[in-house]
Amino acid sequence: MDEFSFIDSIKQKTYKQSSIIKGIGDDAAVFRQQTQDIVIAKDMFVEGVHFTNNTMEPYHIGYRALAANLSDLAAMGANPAFYLVAIAIPKKWSTVDLDSIYQGMKDLAKDYQMDLIGGDTVSGEELTISITVIGYVDKAKAWYRETSEDNDIVFVTGTLGDSQAGFHIINNPGQYDQGEDFLIKRHRMPTPRIHFARELEPISRVSLNDISDGIASEANEIAEASNVCLHLYDSDIPISEHLRQFPLSLQTKWKYYGGEDFELMGTVPEKDWHLIEKAAEKTKTKLSKIGFVSSESKFQGQVILHYNNDKIERLVKNGYNHLRR
Amino acid sequence: MDEFSFIDSIKQKTYKQSSIIKGIGDDAAVFRQQTQDIVIAKDMFVEGVHFTNNTMEPYHIGYRALAANLSDLAAMGANPAFYLVAIAIPKKWSTVDLDSIYQGMKDLAKDYQMDLIGGDTVSGEELTISITVIGYVDKAKAWYRETSEDNDIVFVTGTLGDSQAGFHIINNPGQYDQGEDFLIKRHRMPTPRIHFARELEPISRVSLNDISDGIASEANEIAEASNVCLHLYDSDIPISEHLRQFPLSLQTKWKYYGGEDFELMGTVPEKDWHLIEKAAEKTKTKLSKIGFVSSESKFQGQVILHYNNDKIERLVKNGYNHLRR
Repeated sequence: MDEFSFIDSIKQKTYKQSSIIKGIGDDAAVFRQQTQDIVIAKDMFVEGVHFTNNTMEPYHIGYRALAANLSDLAAMGANPAFYLVAIAIPKKWSTVDLDSIYQGMKDLAKDYQMDLIGGDTVSGEELTISITVIGYVDKAKAWYRETSEDNDIVFVTGTLGDSQAGFHIINNPGQYDQGEDFLIKRHRMPTPRIHFARELEPISRVSLNDISDGIASEANEIAEASNVCLHLYDSDIPISEHLRQFPLSLQTKWKYYGGEDFELMGTVPEKDWHLIEKAAEKTKTKLSKIGFVSSESKFQGQVILHYNNDKIERLVKNGYNHLRR
Repeated sequence: MDEFSFIDSIKQKTYKQSSIIKGIGDDAAVFRQQTQDIVIAKDMFVEGVHFTNNTMEPYHIGYRALAANLSDLAAMGANPAFYLVAIAIPKKWSTVDLDSIYQGMKDLAKDYQMDLIGGDTVSGEELTISITVIGYVDKAKAWYRETSEDNDIVFVTGTLGDSQAGFHIINNPGQYDQGEDFLIKRHRMPTPRIHFARELEPISRVSLNDISDGIASEANEIAEASNVCLHLYDSDIPISEHLRQFPLSLQTKWKYYGGEDFELMGTVPEKDWHLIEKAAEKTKTKLSKIGFVSSESKFQGQVILHYNNDKIERLVKNGYNHLRR
């Protein structure tokens, strides 16, 4: 297949978003948005770094790459609208594989009425995907990390550590007999928390982050950006029943530093806690209160972890950090 | 350097675009555009495919990657506003190299008051850059390929084939004594024709394409999208004096199929030709009339090349086509 036939094959016949003016088929795409703010995020995934042939089918590679980007939109409170895909493909990948990658993205995009409006296809030695997502949010209603305040409640959606547990199971087949499908699905086909985040719009203030690098890293980002201290209760960090079959050291590692669960964590004023609960109930999202915010200068920009035995310790960023050299 | 320090190092202290609401530093960027249409394009460049250490300094890799994307905005008539950069970096590349890549982009971005508002940095085996550019255009004033009509004049900016000649000189050092710097610069630091394209706004209709894959390919795209025939005069295709030192076979190959000159070609109604001339004069852009459009059904969707000896032949797409397999 040449590039032109391939572009024809991925080109949508119709577009779902009413704001689209020109989709795939010219030098660039064109859209119009006069009433809402525009939110844009861009990620990159590389074979051998973010996934391998052994841990992911082509379909999952596409699905997960888009899910990770949508998670960024969720963390801003935005409604997804468009995506663009640039992909470098090694010759060893077949056209069928390539179609599967795009099918994985399309199936997830469909859940949110997103349109594929552009991108690029080139050859390369290792499969590399870069996705750009665009979403809309009501004017001045994007949620930022720097808005956390004294006495806020800290919350998180879903359960943490599952994605890394799924990854571990894929790499150690036949050793674990519980929740295999659940955990592997959490790794390969994570659910970006778009629906939950969209229900937060009535709230006056939410500080929000998605958990791509582990909650230790994300909590620190909020603490630093807001110049506050996030206090977390170790025993309140939600984990799935299936995670409990692993040694405690792995549970701890994965729930704090594992990342890639694409859950949302954030802080809200106490008075708005019931609205967060309402959003969780309406979207059938598991919600946990895991701590509180303080503005004491001693711990500014830090995350303090509280254990049941009253011991406390500082929780530092230690998630994924790809640029280590 | 870790990822967090690196992001700090590329983060702009201030933003030039008034439409920016949130730049780098959260899960996504946010901007607001209530009066104009939004144009978005995304490309990808891979080491060993689009460039090598031998043909490009890191600075040029960055400069050229952004120039190619800006050329897409020019082809839509859009004014550049923002860019996002996702980059996969092999460990062998130093932090100095990485800085140079970004400096190349920054220097070009500065010419158009563009802001860097997001992206991603990951590790990989081969340097891969994906850039997303966003620009603005007055409502319903983006230029499309499908609007070409009978009797339009076909035009092109600049000279063609220079980029490939520059590439050839880099790979065959010391063999050519004329215009070396000019041709190499045309390869490494092409000028996207933004200023020229912006001056076309008063015109009622322009069909526009940027020359990334060679004029043979771009002319066919306009002919196909508009269901017309583009007639080009071989002797009117503009080439630089420096290109004439090469064998005629190379001149022909490079000017028609070489690509990456990032000039603009298009068609306009005869009555508006003087406005195109005015735009070229105002922006000091070389402009050439190279043919005309006909709607005769026999040649619909085709490009016909006319030679001085009255011979004609069909010019087919034969530019770069990365997905060949």
